[in-house]
Amino acid sequence: MGKLVFGVDVGGTTVKLGCFDTEGNLLDKWEIPTRTEDKGSNIIGDIAGSILVKLAKDDIDKKDVEGIGIGVPGPVKGDGTVIVAVNLGWKDLNVNKELEELTDIRVKASNDANVAALGEMWRGGGQGYNNVVAVTLGTGVGGGIIVDGKIVNGATGAGGEIGHIHLEDNESEACGCGGHGCLEQYASATGVVRLAKKKLADSSKDSILREGEVTAKDVWDAVKAGDELAMEVAHIYGEYLGKGLAAVADVVNPEVFVIGGGVSKAGRVLIEYMEPYYEKYVFPGGKGAKFALAKLGNDAGIYGAARLVLDK
Amino acid sequence: MGKLVFGVDVGGTTVKLGCFDTEGNLLDKWEIPTRTEDKGSNIIGDIAGSILVKLAKDDIDKKDVEGIGIGVPGPVKGDGTVIVAVNLGWKDLNVNKELEELTDIRVKASNDANVAALGEMWRGGGQGYNNVVAVTLGTGVGGGIIVDGKIVNGATGAGGEIGHIHLEDNESEACGCGGHGCLEQYASATGVVRLAKKKLADSSKDSILREGEVTAKDVWDAVKAGDELAMEVAHIYGEYLGKGLAAVADVVNPEVFVIGGGVSKAGRVLIEYMEPYYEKYVFPGGKGAKFALAKLGNDAGIYGAARLVLDK
Repeated sequence: MGKLVFGVDVGGTTVKLGCFDTEGNLLDKWEIPTRTEDKGSNIIGDIAGSILVKLAKDDIDKKDVEGIGIGVPGPVKGDGTVIVAVNLGWKDLNVNKELEELTDIRVKASNDANVAALGEMWRGGGQGYNNVVAVTLGTGVGGGIIVDGKIVNGATGAGGEIGHIHLEDNESEACGCGGHGCLEQYASATGVVRLAKKKLADSSKDSILREGEVTAKDVWDAVKAGDELAMEVAHIYGEYLGKGLAAVADVVNPEVFVIGGGVSKAGRVLIEYMEPYYEKYVFPGGKGAKFALAKLGNDAGIYGAARLVLDK
Repeated sequence: MGKLVFGVDVGGTTVKLGCFDTEGNLLDKWEIPTRTEDKGSNIIGDIAGSILVKLAKDDIDKKDVEGIGIGVPGPVKGDGTVIVAVNLGWKDLNVNKELEELTDIRVKASNDANVAALGEMWRGGGQGYNNVVAVTLGTGVGGGIIVDGKIVNGATGAGGEIGHIHLEDNESEACGCGGHGCLEQYASATGVVRLAKKKLADSSKDSILREGEVTAKDVWDAVKAGDELAMEVAHIYGEYLGKGLAAVADVVNPEVFVIGGGVSKAGRVLIEYMEPYYEKYVFPGGKGAKFALAKLGNDAGIYGAARLVLDK
């Protein structure tokens, strides 16, 4: 048997764990609940226990384990210290040190969004590339920047916070971050719905969207069904997203953008509406970047965590 | 004597050369003309000759030379191939290979703006930091991104082209890149003058700037002299620049921005007008970034080139 590596993705409700070979083939995955009580003081012990049980059960020798990678929902310093992870109750916790002490296995922690980007680079939509920007279009808009195969964490762990690039001066509503006119206010799931509601109010056009509550999925389904008003919304959406990603490309000039998150379930149509605007706004050297859909879904985190610890 | 390293900065008119110790102390510097005739086919030979003469003259053994770093005005691939350098006449030229063959010394080439950023990180305004964005406010607006001590070249060598981040939808004039509303159209030397002329036309206020031709220096001198109209221009300038740098921070979250180029000769006053807008537009995690003025001036390129080749 070759060497193995564990990937751990710590969420607010469950901790996902995966056991991989060093080529990135997923051999086994499972979940344990995240016990957030007592400031999350049981979480690291639960993870250590779950991995040690797995080793015993499958008769795996520790010297055949390359390490444990772990993605955490919050900014993580280079030495593995989690500055704060609100959803877990953690504050100033050195994950590398604590989990190494309990398992006697090498540990490497990083921010979960950045780790997921690494996963998509390794075995997902960005496979075969070294310069990747992963974009998550979900409740919010997140990003993970990979340069020459390595995560850009940033000085305060805020690298890749592309959802908060300012795009619109004429925005009266505030973003969750406190700003006004952030990419996230247009390109997230709630962003699409907001754009659709505004268009419905401003236009007298007939539309499928006039019936009942509108979700992000409804908007893209209507676009695919040829609904004219929905297509106008998709153009507005595409222009904001294209403009935002063009700014990202002007800074780090990636080979490929990997688009994931709930909104991306709309599929290639989203990219088709966005790409012409990206090309319009980006610096000439950034033109022709590739756009791919994310492939790993909720497993991106465990893949990326495993990849993280292999990168010595 | 310790080891030595050469830094070379190839410009359209002159080639600057520097000889450094490995700590970054400049021991000697000189220039040779850039012979751009015959598609620049003599340039590499001239550089090789100049370095070999220096070695002979100072009786330096080649085995005491760590390498030759070289900054080139154009995009450079990882293997040292210059895709195109319009000002030199070069196209698809592997600088590493050609200069290594002539000197028998290890060579590493990269884009000149990125190399200058590395110089400012090593021994200039960004000294002591590993995550640096260098911003050049000159005829154009350029940038160099350093993450964990390494240059972000980007997929097509267009990393750090921050002058072309789109900021203004209501711009009728075209930027040199073909776009409309790029940061460079406001924050460059011609950008300041353009903003000043627009303000002079729109306002009836008295101003020192109403006398004769206006240069970027005139605008900042007037700001320092307390000229109200010039201060209004400085606010507009600061808002564009602050908004652009906030977008950069949302992507790579640097520890420090190092501001250089002709316009930066205005000094800290430029940063004072820009910083409040940066803080307004940046993601919370990016707040509190440091802003420093560049220190190395025209020598940033030779310092950075030397640093480049030390980074194996």
